[in-house]
Amino acid sequence: MASKESDAVRRHWEAARTPSGDQVDRELADHRWAELTAEPDHVDYLAVPDRPALWIVPHDATTDRVLLCLHGGGYIGGSRYSHRKLFAHLAKAVGARALVFDYSLAPERIHPVQVDEAVDTYRWLLDQGIAPEHIVFAGDSAGGGMAITTQLRARAAGLPLPAGALPFSPWINFEANGATYDSNRDRDAFFHRDLVRGLARIFLGPDGSPRDPNVNPTYGDLTGLGPIYIQVGGDEVLLDDARQLAEAAEKAGVDVRLDVFAEMQHTFQMAAGRAPEADDAISRMGQWGRKVLGL
Amino acid sequence: MASKESDAVRRHWEAARTPSGDQVDRELADHRWAELTAEPDHVDYLAVPDRPALWIVPHDATTDRVLLCLHGGGYIGGSRYSHRKLFAHLAKAVGARALVFDYSLAPERIHPVQVDEAVDTYRWLLDQGIAPEHIVFAGDSAGGGMAITTQLRARAAGLPLPAGALPFSPWINFEANGATYDSNRDRDAFFHRDLVRGLARIFLGPDGSPRDPNVNPTYGDLTGLGPIYIQVGGDEVLLDDARQLAEAAEKAGVDVRLDVFAEMQHTFQMAAGRAPEADDAISRMGQWGRKVLGL
Repeated sequence: MASKESDAVRRHWEAARTPSGDQVDRELADHRWAELTAEPDHVDYLAVPDRPALWIVPHDATTDRVLLCLHGGGYIGGSRYSHRKLFAHLAKAVGARALVFDYSLAPERIHPVQVDEAVDTYRWLLDQGIAPEHIVFAGDSAGGGMAITTQLRARAAGLPLPAGALPFSPWINFEANGATYDSNRDRDAFFHRDLVRGLARIFLGPDGSPRDPNVNPTYGDLTGLGPIYIQVGGDEVLLDDARQLAEAAEKAGVDVRLDVFAEMQHTFQMAAGRAPEADDAISRMGQWGRKVLGL
Repeated sequence: MASKESDAVRRHWEAARTPSGDQVDRELADHRWAELTAEPDHVDYLAVPDRPALWIVPHDATTDRVLLCLHGGGYIGGSRYSHRKLFAHLAKAVGARALVFDYSLAPERIHPVQVDEAVDTYRWLLDQGIAPEHIVFAGDSAGGGMAITTQLRARAAGLPLPAGALPFSPWINFEANGATYDSNRDRDAFFHRDLVRGLARIFLGPDGSPRDPNVNPTYGDLTGLGPIYIQVGGDEVLLDDARQLAEAAEKAGVDVRLDVFAEMQHTFQMAAGRAPEADDAISRMGQWGRKVLGL
């Protein structure tokens, strides 16, 4: 049974399902999402002067290893502030610094602006002198998909690949045709097919395709990518997105691991520092990340 | 008329008046209070390794001038996290660093533990090499009272006085006998006499006195204190607390200024970065602080 602390994640999504009468702005919505996460201690947060990004620096972290963090939010929400604490827990578990940044959101800006801004941030990180083999991409939901698409897009732009990727609850299937949309329909507290297809339409705009490899990386060439560790909640309608990503990566010869967390909701790791399931998940990502980064 | 952004402060207090069925823990309550404040940019937050404190460092701040920040919360709540963004706005306005710290809360710990921990933090700050004439105490509500009581307690312990103090919506009268408890009864969205007397009992414990100068500084000797700039909302039942502090300081020959903000609620400055009244208040504190700190 899910812990009562993880049940807070389910309640968060249930509340989001029923829009309140209030006009909820993005910053407020981000703040309420961040409410799920405990404040980790012994972490510094440094604002990057010239871009909307935060360095997350655990006090005992190795400074030359970096998690490039891609926040979720369906491409219409989320920010470096909604995910500050979550990625700080992850950075502590890995023992590395993390960089979390804001990319432009839909509907104001649509694909491929988001993945291009992620590539630009990766290029900037390399320009800071961080070696690609010392970088892992980490992201949840929309950011989980970008943890892979950004690699494809970066490689096409002539950049070296990072050491690996940590997508959790990744959203990659913009056709929303996975079987778990049906089998988990009554378990997922928020997501359903119509909602996800609506988000996909907003993000792709009139001309974008859900089969663009920069949107759904399983339509691209994953050969040569570094190891990928995927986490997903067992109660998610997006469970099949994670499985499809794992299958495509395996088929391409990529070292891939998929952990399904029973009874967990979408991005249940947001309850880090509160819920045992979230802490277990973060701890597993930490162990995996340390190995991939040679720590 | 209060701006619609400042109305969010009133709604926050109204919601707090009606306890929900949820068991709301302190961290969650702190997070919801912090929801009122926008994230300021170009600010770093550094965790102090050995104490529950944060350095707030605006990018263009002078490092040798410091605001020692005393958070509010009725001595039963609030933290360095609930007030992180608020004091960051203030630090930016002053152009100085700020140090915000957690003190022990009631009912687990009662007076005088809180003021003693504040003195200890001030001593630590002096030990870091910051000159007392380069330090201003700033605090809201319970912390506004402590911005004065900590000075009395520090002086009694042989420490030098800081340059001045910025109490806003200060709570100093633990007898809750100000006339504004009646005149603002229908305007204050949260506080009323019984509530404040209840908080006072919790904080003072069985043996504490509301006339202890370390509780209500108007019963102490304010002679020799540096300048004090007090802000208060015109709709607060605690309006008379601010007036009583101003009168006592004036009587003691202290340079004191009191600004009453029409139609504003308790600690309306929490809406910094959102509400024009809060930004105006922060800006006035910034100007005052720069002058007192010689910036």
